[in-house]
Amino acid sequence: MRKFGVIGVGHVGVTVAYTLVTKGIADELVLIDTNEKKALAEQLDLEDAQARLDTNTKIKIQDYSDLEDADVVFVTAGDIEATRTGKGGRWAEFEETKEIVKDIAPKLKNSGFHGVVIVTMNPCDAIAQYLQEQGGFDRQHCFATGTFLDTARMQRVVSEQFGVNAKNVEGYVMGEHGESQFVAWSTVRINGRQLKEFAEMNHKTLDYDDLKEQARLGGWRILEGKGYTSFGIATCAVKLAEAVISDAQLFCPVSSYNEELDTYLGQPAVVGKNGVEYVADIQITDDEKALLKDSAETIKSKFATM
Amino acid sequence: MRKFGVIGVGHVGVTVAYTLVTKGIADELVLIDTNEKKALAEQLDLEDAQARLDTNTKIKIQDYSDLEDADVVFVTAGDIEATRTGKGGRWAEFEETKEIVKDIAPKLKNSGFHGVVIVTMNPCDAIAQYLQEQGGFDRQHCFATGTFLDTARMQRVVSEQFGVNAKNVEGYVMGEHGESQFVAWSTVRINGRQLKEFAEMNHKTLDYDDLKEQARLGGWRILEGKGYTSFGIATCAVKLAEAVISDAQLFCPVSSYNEELDTYLGQPAVVGKNGVEYVADIQITDDEKALLKDSAETIKSKFATM
Amino acid sequence: MRKFGVIGVGHVGVTVAYTLVTKGIADELVLIDTNEKKALAEQLDLEDAQARLDTNTKIKIQDYSDLEDADVVFVTAGDIEATRTGKGGRWAEFEETKEIVKDIAPKLKNSGFHGVVIVTMNPCDAIAQYLQEQGGFDRQHCFATGTFLDTARMQRVVSEQFGVNAKNVEGYVMGEHGESQFVAWSTVRINGRQLKEFAEMNHKTLDYDDLKEQARLGGWRILEGKGYTSFGIATCAVKLAEAVISDAQLFCPVSSYNEELDTYLGQPAVVGKNGVEYVADIQITDDEKALLKDSAETIKSKFATM
Amino acid sequence: MRKFGVIGVGHVGVTVAYTLVTKGIADELVLIDTNEKKALAEQLDLEDAQARLDTNTKIKIQDYSDLEDADVVFVTAGDIEATRTGKGGRWAEFEETKEIVKDIAPKLKNSGFHGVVIVTMNPCDAIAQYLQEQGGFDRQHCFATGTFLDTARMQRVVSEQFGVNAKNVEGYVMGEHGESQFVAWSTVRINGRQLKEFAEMNHKTLDYDDLKEQARLGGWRILEGKGYTSFGIATCAVKLAEAVISDAQLFCPVSSYNEELDTYLGQPAVVGKNGVEYVADIQITDDEKALLKDSAETIKSKFATM
Repeated sequence: MRKFGVIGVGHVGVTVAYTLVTKGIADELVLIDTNEKKALAEQLDLEDAQARLDTNTKIKIQDYSDLEDADVVFVTAGDIEATRTGKGGRWAEFEETKEIVKDIAPKLKNSGFHGVVIVTMNPCDAIAQYLQEQGGFDRQHCFATGTFLDTARMQRVVSEQFGVNAKNVEGYVMGEHGESQFVAWSTVRINGRQLKEFAEMNHKTLDYDDLKEQARLGGWRILEGKGYTSFGIATCAVKLAEAVISDAQLFCPVSSYNEELDTYLGQPAVVGKNGVEYVADIQITDDEKALLKDSAETIKSKFATM
Repeated sequence: MRKFGVIGVGHVGVTVAYTLVTKGIADELVLIDTNEKKALAEQLDLEDAQARLDTNTKIKIQDYSDLEDADVVFVTAGDIEATRTGKGGRWAEFEETKEIVKDIAPKLKNSGFHGVVIVTMNPCDAIAQYLQEQGGFDRQHCFATGTFLDTARMQRVVSEQFGVNAKNVEGYVMGEHGESQFVAWSTVRINGRQLKEFAEMNHKTLDYDDLKEQARLGGWRILEGKGYTSFGIATCAVKLAEAVISDAQLFCPVSSYNEELDTYLGQPAVVGKNGVEYVADIQITDDEKALLKDSAETIKSKFATM
Repeated sequence: MRKFGVIGVGHVGVTVAYTLVTKGIADELVLIDTNEKKALAEQLDLEDAQARLDTNTKIKIQDYSDLEDADVVFVTAGDIEATRTGKGGRWAEFEETKEIVKDIAPKLKNSGFHGVVIVTMNPCDAIAQYLQEQGGFDRQHCFATGTFLDTARMQRVVSEQFGVNAKNVEGYVMGEHGESQFVAWSTVRINGRQLKEFAEMNHKTLDYDDLKEQARLGGWRILEGKGYTSFGIATCAVKLAEAVISDAQLFCPVSSYNEELDTYLGQPAVVGKNGVEYVADIQITDDEKALLKDSAETIKSKFATM
Repeated sequence: MRKFGVIGVGHVGVTVAYTLVTKGIADELVLIDTNEKKALAEQLDLEDAQARLDTNTKIKIQDYSDLEDADVVFVTAGDIEATRTGKGGRWAEFEETKEIVKDIAPKLKNSGFHGVVIVTMNPCDAIAQYLQEQGGFDRQHCFATGTFLDTARMQRVVSEQFGVNAKNVEGYVMGEHGESQFVAWSTVRINGRQLKEFAEMNHKTLDYDDLKEQARLGGWRILEGKGYTSFGIATCAVKLAEAVISDAQLFCPVSSYNEELDTYLGQPAVVGKNGVEYVADIQITDDEKALLKDSAETIKSKFATM
């Protein structure tokens, strides 16, 4: 029996919930929000949907004790308005999301929950670490979507240059799920070729800074147009949860703890039944290592001072 | 190749779009909205999601000519705020949705589109008819979700009384997708038994008026809690579209034209590749027939005077 | 985590296994067969498939102790050749399937397995009861597909008369999954109408005996053409397993224990996390009750004497 | 509307058909076989399954004219017994499959069919080319699964060495879908690292010849255990068909025409709505190029002399 929890039924949380229900992934689902009427409304709307689906998901709301035997809990609370309109990008949410975590973490821990936590809050890396610390969760068991989403955006942006499928583009955006992130271009490959090589073969001159900007700004363009982002991030979160549930040993960039840099940040790792099974030791250039270190410093210094 | 269009990417439209993409139902999808930035944002968000999905949907935006060879077009425009806060329930949207239809209908017709139109706008029955008339569409080819959603709500409400699965509850809510709708209780069955009988066998005394109120008010409770409804209605709309695409000859209540009552309204019909293949001649009581007639009169008189 | 076992990887067992894998239903799957090379071959073939799927299922073989924490175990062993060519239809397999059960039942019980057993062996009703008794399983927890498949065939045969979708045909085949079964015509409805009424409205004269023969012979026509049946029966079995996993409280005909008639036989019941939650008290005619009693007698007397 | 045809409903053909039906991929499906009773039995079995599925696929049999508007036709005829027991591996089927193709090709061409042909027959490369020539199909439009399956087997074998997910293993088996195939080891990567490097990091010494043997022998182990292979090959074929239907521009090894070597053989290509959109110009070593040439020579010389 697959059981999931969603704490925070905003745009991301409900899209995660809807995905779990409409694709028949969840057998049981617990929704929790500070706005009880909203949680109830989402429950009812999801139940209405089920009369027209072939699958069944039992939905409960508002009781942390129901999370005791959940396999995966998504923590998706936050205030995207702060990110959208505030100063400092995703860090504008930190004050608020820290307060949320202070409230959530002990409740989640005290429920007896011993599964895996997947975080989509912002600032993604810092808040995942904060939640891990506040809840006393094992580091493996608590990680965030991080640059898994930014990587999807990079894949899209690069694929558009060549008319290939975004799935044919490999490689990673690393570091902060925020302004200090970077594309590890040395890892980017298309149809089995290094990006640079592939571009030459196709007589394309690539403006890496521009591609990076487009990838980094991806979320902002969506934010500007719809006021929030939901489908990309929720799809990333659900894919990670499925990797946990089926112990997929999925290789992908997520925000997890880096021992050497002593912080959570986006880096390729392997996700399985224990959450982040291990961080992958991939090959990147010295310049990229420096960028990763810089991004780590950014996260750590902001975390320390905010 | 399965091709869909969505006109109006509000809460319902984007949930329809997301469902078609995340479940791999659509091979091609066209999104159209008066707010171009919103349409672009939804396209980008859905494309970000696809890097993490195993399926592929080509997404285009804003060009009616792309609808020429679409199999199904969802018309999901509207202003739920008017319904939520205005007077007269869903009719509060009519003035605005009529204007929308005046704009949409000729563009859709002139695109060369010759598929099936599924409407989720409000007031559902009147606006579906208005769209059919304005666009000069064949009546079979243009229908609305109507009481398919209300029926899902009735199924949920009744199932909760007995701890059964909502899917085990048969029967129909008929008439207006609005205040004059009614549950055709004579059609309601659980686990193969008439509802009345089933209740007696389970020593339950049912308050039909209360159940009806709960079913009728279902949407309002969701509206109050989340500001709109999306999952139930989108799931209904997608199920109808799948019935068209695979020529399922699906038997279900939708809003379609009733010859005798000379109006669109919610009634059991059979949905297939031609849209509404035929209205089902089901058995209801004389009282229910009178309620259906009353509901038809309500729709027609409001339609005529607003 | 959803875990399933399949004991007996013949045509039905492997189709069940493939369905669980290809649709991403199972997180873990245990295959057991007396032919170890066959079990290994199926494991490898299913693993080859997974490199091309987006989902993951961990597959183990041949060890009963892996079934300890399985949610559902399918028992799909048997020798369809005996049914196809032997005397007495599905009873021709009884001698052999009893031997299989004598081997399987204690091993399954001793594994510590405490989930639900779904049986597709033949003769279906007798062997399910025999397995329940031999393994000392709770009656609720051990049931067979029974007339769930025959009902699908009846739905198909009836639907073909009217050009409707088989899913629009309700009603049940009851009794033995074998020659003494019968269609409870009083329960058959199309698009909300009693079959008789629906036929009259469509100016059709139905030959019930012929329809019954076609429904009863459905499996034999398939058996003749391909040497076994697999897709229909496996799809039935998987649907029942999904009902258990998600506690769907699915209302459908299965072979389960009837207190009054003191035998397993096909009858509408409700399937949920406990297996057969309860037998549904549906309304059938006195003639149909007599047929059910006759079918029960057939099963019991053959069971007693073979 | 998605329409598929399957010519040859043996083990592979029916598994393809079942996958298209059970996953709701096909809206319409045409089955053709020289054994009409078998085709009918499969149709009935698939129709029985549909009463228990939420999706609908219209199934027709035996009429080539129904293929006129099919998007994809799978040609899955053959005699695996010849491969399993005959001399010369998959080439043992060539005499028979050539006869089959002589019969099928003109019928398929004359049906007016103008979609994409996906071949799973053996010897895979030669017979795909023979079918393309006999039917006068465009080379792009007619290709075979080829080493797509062998690559899956290589991924599995390599993944087992490291306890990673087979999906995390990249790289290609190239050349003949037969004895002269080879693993292009220079293309094999795990979790973003070259295989050699990854092995060193994990302190593993790899026996490449042994891995290659296991990969090459993969199918034979399955063949030995179950008498045929079905799930892996059918899953490969369906994935390719989905790539055509949704114009996925999927990058993967398939058997297609290589201009330089003037033969069909397994090589990475990009699959979309036109079938093989283009052969990918990947980087392999000079030794691998020589192996590819050798494999091409093997195919060509056998083709010429058998």
